[in-house]
Amino acid sequence: MERVPILKLGDILIISIQIDLDDQSVLALQEDLADRVVSAGARGVIIDISAVEIIDSFIGRMFATIAGMCRMLDAETVVVGMRPAVAITLVELGLSLGGVRTALNLEKGVALLDHLGDRGTPR
Amino acid sequence: MERVPILKLGDILIISIQIDLDDQSVLALQEDLADRVVSAGARGVIIDISAVEIIDSFIGRMFATIAGMCRMLDAETVVVGMRPAVAITLVELGLSLGGVRTALNLEKGVALLDHLGDRGTPR
Repeated sequence: MERVPILKLGDILIISIQIDLDDQSVLALQEDLADRVVSAGARGVIIDISAVEIIDSFIGRMFATIAGMCRMLDAETVVVGMRPAVAITLVELGLSLGGVRTALNLEKGVALLDHLGDRGTPR
Repeated sequence: MERVPILKLGDILIISIQIDLDDQSVLALQEDLADRVVSAGARGVIIDISAVEIIDSFIGRMFATIAGMCRMLDAETVVVGMRPAVAITLVELGLSLGGVRTALNLEKGVALLDHLGDRGTPR
């Protein structure tokens, strides 16, 4: 059980991070995700981190890389479910998520993607 | 990262099993899930097992217990994303999932729950 499963719902892909991510699994996730965004024609990717207790600069960079990659493939990325303690730590350490959008939970993430889709601005 | 996160989308709860479940984490999951079904007023629970490579009788019983528990709380349970190898092993070993409904993937699971909801039969 090393690969993070990618769920598909309509044109949104959902990833729930539950394992400690090392270099290998992050690379695998990015590759799998890029493939799925293309094959599914996804317009949005939601990454749920409600099970994640610690975010360091490594994970932060991963979110930024995924978001940049998805944007190239015409999909928006939203990180949802951040624990309050994680948000506090991120700010205290001066870490950013590289401009990745966040939402409180999965539902609000889906609503955000719907909203972004409605605007239909060229990117 | 011991607890399995429970995602909510509308009146459906989504669980993605990615870790090896032992007795403790199964009990914790069942408790968390029962609480969430009630607090969210959920009508359906979808358990994604696309990351699960091995299902033994212990996991099989867990699905049956969860499904029974959710039915008591007026919610239906659907297991989705079973790998072909897992299905083969289950049949070969003569294991059943205790009459738990299955669907190919998350989308079909949601469709199944919608279909069940539409029938509106008293339970």
